[in-house]
Amino acid sequence: MHELAEPTGPLRVRLDLAYDGTAFLGWAQQPGRRTVQGVLQDALGVLVRTDPPRVGIAGRTDAGVHARGQVAHVDLSPAVAEDPLLPRRLNGLLPPDVRVRRAEPASPGFDARFSALSRTYRYRVADGAHLVDPLRRHDVLSWPRPLDLDAMQAACWPLLGEHDFAAFCKRREGATTVRRLLQLGWRRDPEGLLELTVQADAFCHSMVRSLVGALLAVGEGRRAPGHPGSLLTLGRRADAVAVAPPHGLVLERVEYPPDDELLARQSVTRNLRSLSPD
Amino acid sequence: MHELAEPTGPLRVRLDLAYDGTAFLGWAQQPGRRTVQGVLQDALGVLVRTDPPRVGIAGRTDAGVHARGQVAHVDLSPAVAEDPLLPRRLNGLLPPDVRVRRAEPASPGFDARFSALSRTYRYRVADGAHLVDPLRRHDVLSWPRPLDLDAMQAACWPLLGEHDFAAFCKRREGATTVRRLLQLGWRRDPEGLLELTVQADAFCHSMVRSLVGALLAVGEGRRAPGHPGSLLTLGRRADAVAVAPPHGLVLERVEYPPDDELLARQSVTRNLRSLSPD
Repeated sequence: MHELAEPTGPLRVRLDLAYDGTAFLGWAQQPGRRTVQGVLQDALGVLVRTDPPRVGIAGRTDAGVHARGQVAHVDLSPAVAEDPLLPRRLNGLLPPDVRVRRAEPASPGFDARFSALSRTYRYRVADGAHLVDPLRRHDVLSWPRPLDLDAMQAACWPLLGEHDFAAFCKRREGATTVRRLLQLGWRRDPEGLLELTVQADAFCHSMVRSLVGALLAVGEGRRAPGHPGSLLTLGRRADAVAVAPPHGLVLERVEYPPDDELLARQSVTRNLRSLSPD
Repeated sequence: MHELAEPTGPLRVRLDLAYDGTAFLGWAQQPGRRTVQGVLQDALGVLVRTDPPRVGIAGRTDAGVHARGQVAHVDLSPAVAEDPLLPRRLNGLLPPDVRVRRAEPASPGFDARFSALSRTYRYRVADGAHLVDPLRRHDVLSWPRPLDLDAMQAACWPLLGEHDFAAFCKRREGATTVRRLLQLGWRRDPEGLLELTVQADAFCHSMVRSLVGALLAVGEGRRAPGHPGSLLTLGRRADAVAVAPPHGLVLERVEYPPDDELLARQSVTRNLRSLSPD
């Protein structure tokens, strides 16, 4: 008598992605538009020869925003998921502005979005003609006048920690705008560019670019360093805050807990921000 | 009785330039081709409203090669040369892939090409899918397999100093191929990219990319670390040396002596390499 082999279900794969957001209308798939999710799912569809499997993502990026350390997951048949050539096969099918840096079976309980502890973005600005590098015109904002690093840095402190960031968020019905800001700090990099690092458990829509817009107004001297922090009590979108252009922004990294805490982290996140986390 | 003001001749301006070489057929002007010199002289022509003045350059770059620290000179009327808005005016006329970082009256005796002490280039390679950054696909060479940094570094030592680099040069009738290599070294940058820094008093045509090609063959294990150095005794172009692709190469910096030695340096250089320096 034969024992039937148990049918093996799909295996979850963690994808580490980098993309140049210039020619994409953001991450999320939209019919008839070129998006990172659309291009990636199309490539996966060719690979698995069935309907394109759905890809989950750690940080949904807007049109024109880039990523160097984006993390995604997708469920694939074991034969495809465990193929050591999977990154090379996918890259062979993808356009040069999206690259798969790693593709490996994920640890149990892994969900790119809900298992994540935090996301880290960087925003870069060249505040003077002598700093402008045409090779980086697609990922560095060019600013015609010098910005005051110290004033912008002073404006960061009151924003750190857990707050209601409604002033910096696009309102979404029923969704919380409470977030925990773990890092927010400026430095000059070795080339002299201004570089903002911002890390939070999660970001609501347009939050990073609204924070940058508020900080640039301080750097220019149009607003006092206390202004961005004072908006935290507003409780609604601040009309005075300009959203900074997308091309200076890069999702650099997504942080996850150790493997044995991935599943527990999922439930915490799903409960906390059940309506619109990303 | 009036004394007539002496007619003031043109004033030499030093231009510090950066460009993305992707869409240029190199530096040197060619009829009907898009070159950096052509685009820059066209912009100057609009500015001075006469025939475009001729621009001299420190390092003539090939098609597809980039520059962050290119230096040029041009002779302009004092009114234009001393205009503090000159960089801004030029940038307003230039396409986004060329930027003027500085434009100021030059010190007496300055010649971008003949006053230069040396030129420093960098070549960057991502030797693995996990290192590839789509935002840098235009200035970093993508290499599918890991390269041996130690072997490539060992291959550099014998090339340092003054040698006849004929094996690495495109032959030009009557031109010397003796050059002094001041720096040639690999490192991994903070992102993990391989980065070659190469500095010489001057380079003959295709020399940097031929050196890179010879070193990559060592990094791959196809050649022993002693191979590139052994070619120095060849006295003629080495057929076995591949010229590395242009897009990984950036002219980073041009070094000049103190102001009071600029003129003396010009005569030294003109005598040394009277036929084809650049």
